[in-house]
Amino acid sequence: MKALDVAEFTIVGTGLMGSSLALALRGKVKSLRGIDRDPAARDLAARYFDTITDDLSEATSADVIILATPVRAILRLLDSLKARTKPGTLILDLGSSKAQIVEAMDSLPDHVLAVGGHPMAGKENSGPTSADGTLFKDRVFVLCPTRRSSTDALVFAESMVRAIGAQPLKLSASRHDQAVASISHLPYAVSVALVSAVMQAAQSDDTPWQLASSGFRDASRLAGSDTTMMGDTLLTNREAVLDALQQYRQQLDELESALKSADEARLRAILETAKHARSDSF
Amino acid sequence: MKALDVAEFTIVGTGLMGSSLALALRGKVKSLRGIDRDPAARDLAARYFDTITDDLSEATSADVIILATPVRAILRLLDSLKARTKPGTLILDLGSSKAQIVEAMDSLPDHVLAVGGHPMAGKENSGPTSADGTLFKDRVFVLCPTRRSSTDALVFAESMVRAIGAQPLKLSASRHDQAVASISHLPYAVSVALVSAVMQAAQSDDTPWQLASSGFRDASRLAGSDTTMMGDTLLTNREAVLDALQQYRQQLDELESALKSADEARLRAILETAKHARSDSF
Repeated sequence: MKALDVAEFTIVGTGLMGSSLALALRGKVKSLRGIDRDPAARDLAARYFDTITDDLSEATSADVIILATPVRAILRLLDSLKARTKPGTLILDLGSSKAQIVEAMDSLPDHVLAVGGHPMAGKENSGPTSADGTLFKDRVFVLCPTRRSSTDALVFAESMVRAIGAQPLKLSASRHDQAVASISHLPYAVSVALVSAVMQAAQSDDTPWQLASSGFRDASRLAGSDTTMMGDTLLTNREAVLDALQQYRQQLDELESALKSADEARLRAILETAKHARSDSF
Repeated sequence: MKALDVAEFTIVGTGLMGSSLALALRGKVKSLRGIDRDPAARDLAARYFDTITDDLSEATSADVIILATPVRAILRLLDSLKARTKPGTLILDLGSSKAQIVEAMDSLPDHVLAVGGHPMAGKENSGPTSADGTLFKDRVFVLCPTRRSSTDALVFAESMVRAIGAQPLKLSASRHDQAVASISHLPYAVSVALVSAVMQAAQSDDTPWQLASSGFRDASRLAGSDTTMMGDTLLTNREAVLDALQQYRQQLDELESALKSADEARLRAILETAKHARSDSF
């Protein structure tokens, strides 16, 4: 593998994540090419890249190809890059679930290098206009080794992660997927169901919306995420998300039962345990 | 009723809400007395008030008494103020549920004025050190008329609400309580259950906590609320909160069922409807 500063990069998908990565890598790599099918995204993202195009075949001249699209688009991209990637090219991705991606990377041709990736960073607003070169700063960036991850490839991926100010964390795809099911995909599902419930409650009388304050805004923020990306994420991490929902439901049952029986001691214990666990975690 | 700028105020409870109100009223009223049982809270809040004491009997010389404690403490305060409040005194409160408070206000002596209040504003951190004179700015401030709300009393309460930069909204206690059950108490319960579920998931492997990012932080923020205040709020608005939980559970079932059956069209419809409802509401 070349050193980072002389490597030519292609980033496929110039939305929030791809464009933010381009901004974060600017000046630290030899060149940055953006690829996006969407003309509007290309127009908005053009200034983050040295060149931008809709032609995936141009990806194959790069030293490093970063796939920064929703998960199932990443799977399609891996399939179409398979036959035409030159030997020694490193393919990385930024997808939110990893098992299916790592499985697809495992069966890439022997001469291709590949590492699964997931930066634990995001934003309420998607698209290139929300791009932010500091998005990854001080955030954990998960790296999932694959059968195509040589030591060199992993060292290179870690150096890239450090170059954008993030902290690399090596995890297997299954441990990653279980953990994000709880800490990321469940909060999204919970937030969507919350908004849906308020919609129901406000159907005949919109007073609830009139009284919405910062508490609801924060609790529902994730429901504003890009639905294509999140739909893909839930569907490609289905089993783990369903397990997390099951676990969540049990906790909700506990709380509801304490409230129903007006068992103040039990209710207070639940509220305080959660308050302390949360404050310990930040 | 006197005009706002010549009225003497007593605020009982000098935590986040009481102290923020003192800051917001500073210079707009004749005097501000703080009352708190907790010596630490008095020490921290002293600078927001002209005088501060632990002696509730001093409240009774004021023109306006604001009760800024958790709901059940407000109920106890109303009971102990009942016998000793001088004629024409206006009692207002800032409690998060209103039915029990309005009921208690209804049975105050004829010569006392009383209006229920609830500013739709809050903060992650409680206590006087988090006090903020702009906390109420541009927020809705619900006013619930009681049998002790004369026209004068309501006009005065509205002028106070406008003086601190908030928007008065008159609502019956029951409409208020149903609306906040959905838009405020449900999000809190959902957020607590979310933290509890992550705790469970992270029991044998703390990877979920390592991957916590801004999404989880926002979705769980309400779980960091003051547990005394929120326990009181849930217990004094129990029926409405249980109804809201019921409604929420149905929405969660819908989402789970779409995911379980991998029904992408249905899942996408749920995610998009929630995304749009949320963006329309802010």
